[in-house]
Amino acid sequence: MLNVGIVGGTGYTGVELLRLLINHSQVNVKVITSRSEEGVAVADIYHSLRGHCDLRFSTPDIDTLASCDVVFFATPHGVAHQLVPALYERGVKIIDLSADFRLKDAQLWAQWYGQPHGCESLLPEAVYGLPEVNREQIASAQLVACPGCYPTATQLGFLPLIESNLVDTQYLIANAASGVSGAGRQASVGTLHAEVSDSFKAYAASGHRHLPEIEQGLRLAQPAGSEPAQLTFVPHLLPMIRGIHTTLYAKLKDTSVNLQALYEKRYSKETFVDVMPEGSHPQTRTVKSSNMCRLAVTRPQGGDTVVVMSVIDNLTKGASGQAVQNMNIMCGFDESEGLNHLGLLP
Amino acid sequence: MLNVGIVGGTGYTGVELLRLLINHSQVNVKVITSRSEEGVAVADIYHSLRGHCDLRFSTPDIDTLASCDVVFFATPHGVAHQLVPALYERGVKIIDLSADFRLKDAQLWAQWYGQPHGCESLLPEAVYGLPEVNREQIASAQLVACPGCYPTATQLGFLPLIESNLVDTQYLIANAASGVSGAGRQASVGTLHAEVSDSFKAYAASGHRHLPEIEQGLRLAQPAGSEPAQLTFVPHLLPMIRGIHTTLYAKLKDTSVNLQALYEKRYSKETFVDVMPEGSHPQTRTVKSSNMCRLAVTRPQGGDTVVVMSVIDNLTKGASGQAVQNMNIMCGFDESEGLNHLGLLP
Amino acid sequence: MLNVGIVGGTGYTGVELLRLLINHSQVNVKVITSRSEEGVAVADIYHSLRGHCDLRFSTPDIDTLASCDVVFFATPHGVAHQLVPALYERGVKIIDLSADFRLKDAQLWAQWYGQPHGCESLLPEAVYGLPEVNREQIASAQLVACPGCYPTATQLGFLPLIESNLVDTQYLIANAASGVSGAGRQASVGTLHAEVSDSFKAYAASGHRHLPEIEQGLRLAQPAGSEPAQLTFVPHLLPMIRGIHTTLYAKLKDTSVNLQALYEKRYSKETFVDVMPEGSHPQTRTVKSSNMCRLAVTRPQGGDTVVVMSVIDNLTKGASGQAVQNMNIMCGFDESEGLNHLGLLP
Amino acid sequence: MLNVGIVGGTGYTGVELLRLLINHSQVNVKVITSRSEEGVAVADIYHSLRGHCDLRFSTPDIDTLASCDVVFFATPHGVAHQLVPALYERGVKIIDLSADFRLKDAQLWAQWYGQPHGCESLLPEAVYGLPEVNREQIASAQLVACPGCYPTATQLGFLPLIESNLVDTQYLIANAASGVSGAGRQASVGTLHAEVSDSFKAYAASGHRHLPEIEQGLRLAQPAGSEPAQLTFVPHLLPMIRGIHTTLYAKLKDTSVNLQALYEKRYSKETFVDVMPEGSHPQTRTVKSSNMCRLAVTRPQGGDTVVVMSVIDNLTKGASGQAVQNMNIMCGFDESEGLNHLGLLP
Repeated sequence: MLNVGIVGGTGYTGVELLRLLINHSQVNVKVITSRSEEGVAVADIYHSLRGHCDLRFSTPDIDTLASCDVVFFATPHGVAHQLVPALYERGVKIIDLSADFRLKDAQLWAQWYGQPHGCESLLPEAVYGLPEVNREQIASAQLVACPGCYPTATQLGFLPLIESNLVDTQYLIANAASGVSGAGRQASVGTLHAEVSDSFKAYAASGHRHLPEIEQGLRLAQPAGSEPAQLTFVPHLLPMIRGIHTTLYAKLKDTSVNLQALYEKRYSKETFVDVMPEGSHPQTRTVKSSNMCRLAVTRPQGGDTVVVMSVIDNLTKGASGQAVQNMNIMCGFDESEGLNHLGLLP
Repeated sequence: MLNVGIVGGTGYTGVELLRLLINHSQVNVKVITSRSEEGVAVADIYHSLRGHCDLRFSTPDIDTLASCDVVFFATPHGVAHQLVPALYERGVKIIDLSADFRLKDAQLWAQWYGQPHGCESLLPEAVYGLPEVNREQIASAQLVACPGCYPTATQLGFLPLIESNLVDTQYLIANAASGVSGAGRQASVGTLHAEVSDSFKAYAASGHRHLPEIEQGLRLAQPAGSEPAQLTFVPHLLPMIRGIHTTLYAKLKDTSVNLQALYEKRYSKETFVDVMPEGSHPQTRTVKSSNMCRLAVTRPQGGDTVVVMSVIDNLTKGASGQAVQNMNIMCGFDESEGLNHLGLLP
Repeated sequence: MLNVGIVGGTGYTGVELLRLLINHSQVNVKVITSRSEEGVAVADIYHSLRGHCDLRFSTPDIDTLASCDVVFFATPHGVAHQLVPALYERGVKIIDLSADFRLKDAQLWAQWYGQPHGCESLLPEAVYGLPEVNREQIASAQLVACPGCYPTATQLGFLPLIESNLVDTQYLIANAASGVSGAGRQASVGTLHAEVSDSFKAYAASGHRHLPEIEQGLRLAQPAGSEPAQLTFVPHLLPMIRGIHTTLYAKLKDTSVNLQALYEKRYSKETFVDVMPEGSHPQTRTVKSSNMCRLAVTRPQGGDTVVVMSVIDNLTKGASGQAVQNMNIMCGFDESEGLNHLGLLP
Repeated sequence: MLNVGIVGGTGYTGVELLRLLINHSQVNVKVITSRSEEGVAVADIYHSLRGHCDLRFSTPDIDTLASCDVVFFATPHGVAHQLVPALYERGVKIIDLSADFRLKDAQLWAQWYGQPHGCESLLPEAVYGLPEVNREQIASAQLVACPGCYPTATQLGFLPLIESNLVDTQYLIANAASGVSGAGRQASVGTLHAEVSDSFKAYAASGHRHLPEIEQGLRLAQPAGSEPAQLTFVPHLLPMIRGIHTTLYAKLKDTSVNLQALYEKRYSKETFVDVMPEGSHPQTRTVKSSNMCRLAVTRPQGGDTVVVMSVIDNLTKGASGQAVQNMNIMCGFDESEGLNHLGLLP
């Protein structure tokens, strides 16, 4: 059994990690940390775990964490910068769900996150944990930076078009919408039920932190020598708990391509990407609690605009599920171990 | 007092019309029809009207309807085609909330609605009832075709850009989302609570009936001689009852324009269009139950893509409220009579 | 025009007061206070008020408030205790939406609210503002304590039974459920959308502050010499914004009574209580945004248990609407002035 | 591997059965029937099953069903009456999720379901499938009638009190609330999102079909010679998909009993009943997608009224999960096989 630690377990990605890891046949969750809830039983905060989890939150301790084979970070940005180096040195495998190691450019990170990058030295070692792109590097990585939720849905939706150089990359649009669990479990007026329910709005239209991450991913996927992709990314807040839906728009350079075949071929070997038949509209509820990304592609009125729809569960494929998928790859388990359960519907 | 009739009163636009007209100081609702609910008290179906409405549904009768000063149609498409001519002939003012007279091109209508246009002869008389564009023609019209919900939000969002010829009209994108009341009050599996709640999806991505209506409006707004505007329009279904949010994308031909000033000026005299300050994100809940369209415009990262966000209540400004606004204009009342109440929040 | 002040205007009862008072024909809202939002435009917090309200929040100032004819308190408990005496002395009419003057027994108040009662001297002057019980005293009162939301729905449901001495008052049960707006607009984890949505729970089953208030009201309604009524009151949290539903259970001492006639007679002259026909089930959505309390009464299987269902909008009849109703009575206006709009449905 | 058939697989209990059975290590789902969807791929209706289920709906055929080891009925009432006898004769184990064999009294069944009982002869063989009461009989049964959703939550909540003869059984109250999935997947106006969302109501207050089932269960649990228990049962409709919450009220005959200890002892060996600590309030979301029933018991203000709160997922412990639990018992598998996954939260 693999001994696993979780740093920062009180948030929604923390409880989702526990849901998946407790049912994982190869894993023993040994420690889960939280400064604010030190000493509290995990199951007292998350009653769904009653009877399945005897852990108590503890203050992060490097020695304890270093005794684990794998440590997950489910922390706000900046925390992993501080704790990862010591663990890395001691050979622990690290899977960071936060934004700390996603951007390769420390300056860019500092600009979007409003503070200096706290661990530039490990940036070259960090592998971006999108298995559908980086499976081989993940397998041999010691430090994996799990993609953000929007970036996962958006990149998986755009990749076949970008890799094949089929669209005008200077005018890409990602209209995205997320359930409110993406905002975390912090007390705040803006995410109260009475503020969010029965309403819909865009936010951060002028610039969201996931934008540079998505652009980085798209640019890496472009054929060498291409003009760097430019994305307009507008996220929206949905009156629901789980689920991300992105609607992607791009202008085709060549309308003769068979988009359906392109997408099906690109993801034919991917367990966690499902290309739906032509004419489909993926619903977020079909991936609720599952690690699946479900896609559909269409060309309205046969014109030169391609529309891609992509859905994930933001807490699963968009966070903790993908983290477990990365762990499976890093540790040589079956990639879908612990992730094979069916989505909850309705 | 104006005597008013409503044809097809059992749906959500019907009860919304009643909500507004019963509180309207100049109006007496004389008759409301429904074939299926003939004889049933309106307040027995809509308990919110108990004590405020003594009407019973009756079978549509031309003589009774012709005794009204104004008749509203809140019917499925095709019905108004049949009943409007007789009423028109007898001088009744007609406000049609259905799609029957929105498109000027009968062939186009037949193509999108899957049946021949049933009343081509009155098409030249019908005025498209978007007051912010056609106020003068509405004032003298006898037959007004109220815009659809998506077309209202989308046109009001795009108009300042289109009229000023500021954007590439060959690549306009409208990403729209609506509450489920837009689908009406018919029994159907697809709009059950257990199907819609806690989920989000696009629908009709390959072509929605509101597309030609929006394109017609945008093209009429273009400067003479322009290449006709081309729109990609993708509607989505929100897990909530009321509200439409459209996120509009266009490529600026000239980035030196002051978009905020442009929008504020365009709508400075409009009671029911509110241009929010720069950096705002309109929420659908801020227009719930009100006739307001709330807009914001931004240019992410100062680039050449303009993003417009536009929200309305689909049953009010998107249907019954706008119908009452049109009635006020046609009858010489204050345009905001009966529409001055504040939106419900939270 | 009546000059009106609002103390504590940033919460949901504050914005609901504004919604109602701005549309009230006899009222001018002169001042609205908030320490935390001092200087901020009200419409910047509540966008639904944009264009309808030019007020800015100010720090509470006795002289300014004393220049109003009526001052509403929409504050947490304890605040009115501090500010009311000075205003009372200067002859201002005061309508307190908080719990400060609801209980006649200062010791009981101290016990349930965990702090000494701050203004015992005015308790004898305070009139409990349930118009269906105390209309005459309200008309001549200078200080009115508006009932809580649960107490309004529960008392209106029980009163006909209690006043007529028809049930065993030693075993009354009120199973109540409220939308989350009842918890206010404070940042808190427990009322986040991701915590409340798609779930249901009881809370404060061992004792809620509204229990002594309800018992006080029921006991005052009992015939002289009765053994004081005993209530079990269990509130629940609904995954929705507005609305309270109470399901009341009592054991009939005499099953020959015509309950329907009893209820209809009791409320025959009440504008804001609607007794539905036998067999009805009131829905909270039928009173959304309205000041109505809608009731139904039944005796399952013709047994000796009576079940009463009672719904209100917790922010309207359960708070701000009832406050305006009280103001109308205190100021000699028509009791339904500003409250005659129809509920929003769907 | 056990070969399993499902009759009536298009509803929500059908898809929930598939979710659980596909992940069950000992089961192969061989056939699933639906007359209306004959020939349609199951995964085309329930996209969450894409990639995990190759079955197509077929018309029910006795020979095919008889080739299964176990057949589940997830049908409307009346259907199992017709098909069960032939399968029973051929030795197939039958687990009926419908109401057909729940009531022991055929006359009572006929009275509540409005049609004659169609299979009285097998009533003596049918075992009521509440494992916490009937585990042994279930183990040897060939025909198991799975309890209804409300009856499961209500009986598990009341049983410790009833079995111990601690309360006045002539005045039991069950105030219950269910998510809308309990109403099934039929097209109907009453369960549209726009009708159900953002609202709450009681229904069937004068008598619901689950009442006689609950009373039957409570009476069987009473000590011999007791006066038969009398229940008032009022169900309510929650604006959410999954979850049942019952709030139970009874009058204690003896207030010296330690209720917490009583409940903990009664369920100490039950895997799927979790008695929470004193002062807890179970939330439906803590059992979402899981087979757990979570309980709390309290005595408000130390009086003689006991309040029990009980939550289940109506589609899991309230239907398909309990059916799988019964299958495990009938087939000698570990009782929690296939049911060990953690609930989904948030």
